[in-house]
Amino acid sequence: MARLVVIYKMPKDTAAFDRHYANIHIPLAKKVPGLTKYDVSRGPVLAPGGASGVHLVAMLHFDSMDALQAGLASPEGKAAADDLKNFADGGVDLYFFDDGAA
Amino acid sequence: MARLVVIYKMPKDTAAFDRHYANIHIPLAKKVPGLTKYDVSRGPVLAPGGASGVHLVAMLHFDSMDALQAGLASPEGKAAADDLKNFADGGVDLYFFDDGAA
Repeated sequence: MARLVVIYKMPKDTAAFDRHYANIHIPLAKKVPGLTKYDVSRGPVLAPGGASGVHLVAMLHFDSMDALQAGLASPEGKAAADDLKNFADGGVDLYFFDDGAA
Repeated sequence: MARLVVIYKMPKDTAAFDRHYANIHIPLAKKVPGLTKYDVSRGPVLAPGGASGVHLVAMLHFDSMDALQAGLASPEGKAAADDLKNFADGGVDLYFFDDGAA
């Protein structure tokens, strides 16, 4: 299985971020072809010291890296990526990889 | 469910990192009480531009944030955390949070 992890740093206005994420970004991301599972953090994202500087973590699953990369390259994937600039003003890191049990 | 995401930045010696991770760190981490699932990235961790600067991503699952935090605070959790300094010389970010379907 392949996974896309999206790490949203703390935005300027968390309420505006949350509204945009729920109402606009999730529906866009759910249209990405090949997406099999889409989990998001609920409530605070913590670090061992306490606050992490991260507001939200999203994890999107695909059957394979090929499916993931085809999904990102699709018009729907590009629309979701293009939407990031509309709300992720704290910065965002995207990582994708194959994964398996340790 | 609650999740611990561990992001290992590129170490100085990836072969030494991989040996330590497989032979020492995974067995230590698997002893953490409450751990229900432990996935790791396989192969390169990519970013939209190509290289991500991240060598490995681990995702550890627990039934709840209480279970996760109790696991981290346990002697086994402290032993796993204490082992990070022995191989994660590129730096490591730990994030933990409750999660659910988007």
